[in-house]
Amino acid sequence: MRVDILTLFPGMFAPMHESMMWKAQDRGLLDFHTHDIRDWTTDRHRTVDDTPYGGGGGMVLKADILVPAIEATRGETNAPVILMSPQGRVFKHEIAHELAQHEHLVIVCGHYEGFDERIRALVATDEISIGDYVLTSGELAAMVVVDAVVRLLPGVLGAETGAETDSHADGLLEGPHYTRPAEFRGLGVPDVLKSGNHGAVDAWRREQALRRTWEKRPDLLERAPITDKERALLARWELERTFDTQIAPDGDDDAT
Amino acid sequence: MRVDILTLFPGMFAPMHESMMWKAQDRGLLDFHTHDIRDWTTDRHRTVDDTPYGGGGGMVLKADILVPAIEATRGETNAPVILMSPQGRVFKHEIAHELAQHEHLVIVCGHYEGFDERIRALVATDEISIGDYVLTSGELAAMVVVDAVVRLLPGVLGAETGAETDSHADGLLEGPHYTRPAEFRGLGVPDVLKSGNHGAVDAWRREQALRRTWEKRPDLLERAPITDKERALLARWELERTFDTQIAPDGDDDAT
Repeated sequence: MRVDILTLFPGMFAPMHESMMWKAQDRGLLDFHTHDIRDWTTDRHRTVDDTPYGGGGGMVLKADILVPAIEATRGETNAPVILMSPQGRVFKHEIAHELAQHEHLVIVCGHYEGFDERIRALVATDEISIGDYVLTSGELAAMVVVDAVVRLLPGVLGAETGAETDSHADGLLEGPHYTRPAEFRGLGVPDVLKSGNHGAVDAWRREQALRRTWEKRPDLLERAPITDKERALLARWELERTFDTQIAPDGDDDAT
Repeated sequence: MRVDILTLFPGMFAPMHESMMWKAQDRGLLDFHTHDIRDWTTDRHRTVDDTPYGGGGGMVLKADILVPAIEATRGETNAPVILMSPQGRVFKHEIAHELAQHEHLVIVCGHYEGFDERIRALVATDEISIGDYVLTSGELAAMVVVDAVVRLLPGVLGAETGAETDSHADGLLEGPHYTRPAEFRGLGVPDVLKSGNHGAVDAWRREQALRRTWEKRPDLLERAPITDKERALLARWELERTFDTQIAPDGDDDAT
């Protein structure tokens, strides 16, 4: 996969040369380039932004700089042109899978107030937000997207860390993990994990994943593939929780 | 604010020395430190992780390394200890505001399969996920959190980019922005923005923000503060959309 980034801060992409991203490039699976948007300016001050029509704070990235920069970077390919922006669709595991199907991605990092609307109208094909928070930096958001996508490319992750057992890959959060020492500050490891019974370990892990998702992110259960037996288990947990919270404390029976 | 990061890849934090993050440190508003988790190992191989009890792929970060590392880094403060992990609560603008109230944050970056559960039990006070996707790197997620928090600290953003007019700050997406040139490839700028009528500009911007949010992220409207008049406008848009999609095309009246 080829990834081209348009940015005002090429120096921020240092993390793309470490760890898994470095391995992906070293193995020839990722061809990663950054381009300084200022290279497309022609004035002495290398101006990329200007004040907004209508007044107000903030600066707006100029269409007459960004559009030619994007066109030159995309070339004759039909690569998606993705604006990183709070107005975009919210990034999810499924979108990472979708983007991983492309041979070429062009990602544009916004700063300041945002993009002149005509950049959207003329050359953007997609717009992505990594979450409902505000960042100074489209650069960090772009790196998050690239990381999530590149790790899905065949050959990038070794057998030691399967992408398919990740949190979110099966729609559930992961349950707890333990490694040596067997006891640490009085806290041990669940017996089942030391039993050597693989069937029992798998069943325990699945139930723990279900339990943790139910406790922390019940919204994920609406879309996760869950068996009828697991639905029954969720219903039992719901009942137990309801029962617990409905027990009146002593002395609370004023009416009787 | 002081921020301490525990990581296996201190080199990934180069972006924290650019742009707004650099300014925040230069102005003495942010005291930023990274610590290599391997500094707390005592064996020749500097081992920080081990295979999970119960088998299966992936490596688990060791409690007997991470817990002392976190304790030493936190010191006698009552700083939150935040694990970056897909199991955490989902980061939002409101959580950035909440974290911005603290004088000290300790953030722990996970890798591999995850954290030994006893790290959660013994020293973590919070656990944050930046979104429903899987990253190789807790490092990128930690930088996203730090960026979103630090830009809220008083004095970090200049008057030129007000945090309060950001997308998400008022619960709506931002509407379109325009800057010079007034025409680009046949596309102009809405007349109202060139009218000099500030009241009309503000009203137009608010309606555009409402419209864009309604089109792209209707889920945000449930929590955004919206006037009765704006609710009526949303209702009108809904009606228009419903009406459009319910018109039967010619020749579809087989039954009559």
